[in-house]
Amino acid sequence: MIITLTTDFGLADAYVAAMKGVILGLNPQVTLVDISHSLPPQDVLSAAFILHTSHPFFPEGTIHVTVVDPGVGSPRRPIALATPRAIFIAPDNGLLSYIIAEAEPPPEASPFSGFEVAEKKLPPGLRAFHLNKPQYWRHPVSHTFHGRDIFAPVAAHLSLGVLPEETGEAIPSLSVFSIPRPQPQPDGGWLGHIQHMDAFGNLITDISVRHGLSKAEESHLLKEDVVIDIAGHRIGGLSASYAAGKGLLAIIGSSGYVEIAYKNGHAARYLGAKVGDSFSVRFK
Amino acid sequence: MIITLTTDFGLADAYVAAMKGVILGLNPQVTLVDISHSLPPQDVLSAAFILHTSHPFFPEGTIHVTVVDPGVGSPRRPIALATPRAIFIAPDNGLLSYIIAEAEPPPEASPFSGFEVAEKKLPPGLRAFHLNKPQYWRHPVSHTFHGRDIFAPVAAHLSLGVLPEETGEAIPSLSVFSIPRPQPQPDGGWLGHIQHMDAFGNLITDISVRHGLSKAEESHLLKEDVVIDIAGHRIGGLSASYAAGKGLLAIIGSSGYVEIAYKNGHAARYLGAKVGDSFSVRFK
Amino acid sequence: MIITLTTDFGLADAYVAAMKGVILGLNPQVTLVDISHSLPPQDVLSAAFILHTSHPFFPEGTIHVTVVDPGVGSPRRPIALATPRAIFIAPDNGLLSYIIAEAEPPPEASPFSGFEVAEKKLPPGLRAFHLNKPQYWRHPVSHTFHGRDIFAPVAAHLSLGVLPEETGEAIPSLSVFSIPRPQPQPDGGWLGHIQHMDAFGNLITDISVRHGLSKAEESHLLKEDVVIDIAGHRIGGLSASYAAGKGLLAIIGSSGYVEIAYKNGHAARYLGAKVGDSFSVRFK
Repeated sequence: MIITLTTDFGLADAYVAAMKGVILGLNPQVTLVDISHSLPPQDVLSAAFILHTSHPFFPEGTIHVTVVDPGVGSPRRPIALATPRAIFIAPDNGLLSYIIAEAEPPPEASPFSGFEVAEKKLPPGLRAFHLNKPQYWRHPVSHTFHGRDIFAPVAAHLSLGVLPEETGEAIPSLSVFSIPRPQPQPDGGWLGHIQHMDAFGNLITDISVRHGLSKAEESHLLKEDVVIDIAGHRIGGLSASYAAGKGLLAIIGSSGYVEIAYKNGHAARYLGAKVGDSFSVRFK
Repeated sequence: MIITLTTDFGLADAYVAAMKGVILGLNPQVTLVDISHSLPPQDVLSAAFILHTSHPFFPEGTIHVTVVDPGVGSPRRPIALATPRAIFIAPDNGLLSYIIAEAEPPPEASPFSGFEVAEKKLPPGLRAFHLNKPQYWRHPVSHTFHGRDIFAPVAAHLSLGVLPEETGEAIPSLSVFSIPRPQPQPDGGWLGHIQHMDAFGNLITDISVRHGLSKAEESHLLKEDVVIDIAGHRIGGLSASYAAGKGLLAIIGSSGYVEIAYKNGHAARYLGAKVGDSFSVRFK
Repeated sequence: MIITLTTDFGLADAYVAAMKGVILGLNPQVTLVDISHSLPPQDVLSAAFILHTSHPFFPEGTIHVTVVDPGVGSPRRPIALATPRAIFIAPDNGLLSYIIAEAEPPPEASPFSGFEVAEKKLPPGLRAFHLNKPQYWRHPVSHTFHGRDIFAPVAAHLSLGVLPEETGEAIPSLSVFSIPRPQPQPDGGWLGHIQHMDAFGNLITDISVRHGLSKAEESHLLKEDVVIDIAGHRIGGLSASYAAGKGLLAIIGSSGYVEIAYKNGHAARYLGAKVGDSFSVRFK
């Protein structure tokens, strides 16, 4: 059984280790995998995206613990979300927004007006639970470290066969933020958005070969006649690989999203672009 | 069986990996957990504190290897310390000061005059050994990397059932540094000390809900009428959580010590404060 | 069975985690060890050296995956190299140069003219394979992340008992770069070279107690009458340990190479020295 850990705790302090100690004390047989602990502090959006692009590569039944928790100690709920493939444990602050979106048909394209958080009813096939059964926690529970005292021990109990519904009361809705989707434009192109910046300054957009585009549009996107206009710069054509590009370039990244990169450089800094910014894609 | 590793080797080079390779070559079944490898270089105090606050979350019988070793190659002794819960392996340079202090009744409060290192007799229940049995080492032993050549293989042998007393000669005393303790003041308050700065600049003090304060004082400390004066700044009351505080705040951290933090900022830089500094706690 | 991972992906993004997920999905029993993921981006030389100095500490049969891959998506070959002790998986871009050199008798000393890459026939005892059997890959294969889609799953299959020759077509030669070797000088000394800089700015040279020097020269090197002239500075004698040295010092490092260090400082910055630079060693 695998438990993954994703946090903004950094690697200099022992907070991640304390979580691992608690888990191994309950289930010495579990395999622990770090997804990342170097997320920008309190950046729920980044953590949600990282989880979105990494969890599909883990086997069925994996338990994913994500703790980016600016509201620790406030009344925000600790939750578990069970999908057909995996169980996700997190504070209820939007961290699981992409996981929920993956379970829904892509919505009608509508203008993106920012990453607003709202309570949202779960789509069919997902089950969520408010982690409110203290018998699965570590005691005493601190006010500042639910990762160690609630999320880690609940994950360990789940890995031992406890069912999600035993760990808390079923809840019909969770806090999610709105996810950007490409908007079709009158000229046949798209208005896209930056949805993530990775640690190298590459900009991951919402233009995807898997979501939001038809098969015909996908193959069109791969042609040389695509033109991307972003922050006053123009990129002509997608590069087949980083090795084939130079300077500012666009490429289909490893998660299927179009990425804007600057070869051997930092695209975000070069463009002065940030998460949430929009740009245009046209076809000549 | 779990072996934890704590070093100042950083994660860019392969020094930690070499230790893991040596351990797994001797015991392929062991579970390795990194506590931290990003400690400030040669900062024995920080490493000792990290070990103090993380080891209690690991199960009984865990073997903790800590290598912050400015004196590697000098005559300082490699040691193993067996407690009722765990085995600690380290150079004899003060790294285990907190582990030893945990086994003693809290001393009479006495003025703190700095982290001086001195030879100290072990309290009852602890056993220490000078790791001087070369049959448990990796050969040839380098002058510069006892982590790989002595500490790692000894830990692996212990995880395989070798007894601590087989790994070296029993010794009655170890090098420890003096640990700050809060001093009672004539006004009924306390003189506290900064005993650690974490990677985010939070200042962890020696004022604790577990040590050095009576139950009555603990509950007093949690009231709103506590006043902390530190580096020319005043903090009124403890925050219930990071989310509830703002600016400069004080909170009971996840290890039970009062922490001075600056919300979304770096308290140590803001205050110009450093480890060893004192401050006052009063009750209105 | 152990699989090690060495990349320049950093720890902030989830790329390493995706590789681990793919591996554990195929072989849940494998033990994963990170060698380093913080190598300088696209620095094939550094990665090759790190692998050279870390793999000997892992047990026989370990599978080492190294992905520093500036040419991903170009026609450079993905390869497996089987040695009597281990299997190495990497892009064919020079990453395995040291592994190949270790299997050869040290060549005649010849002037070092830079880290040029050339196709080279394998020495006896080594077998290389072009990873061109898609049944051992993850599909769809991205253009930008062969670490996840080719190297990781091939390693997992090898850990399950697939033979190297099943993973691809045997090939007689690989891309290797020339490795610096110390040059004997008319005065009885040596012209050495910096072959690596570690994360602390220590300069690892090609002067070794294991390669390129006779036993008599080795013991000579350890004497106090050795004089090192580097970048306008002179170092007299080797230090027995970091603790024993001060300022600029030379020491026999943990991998057997002479290192130039600056106590509590950054030797490379102090000297303005870089990988590939030469320096002289004389004996008084």
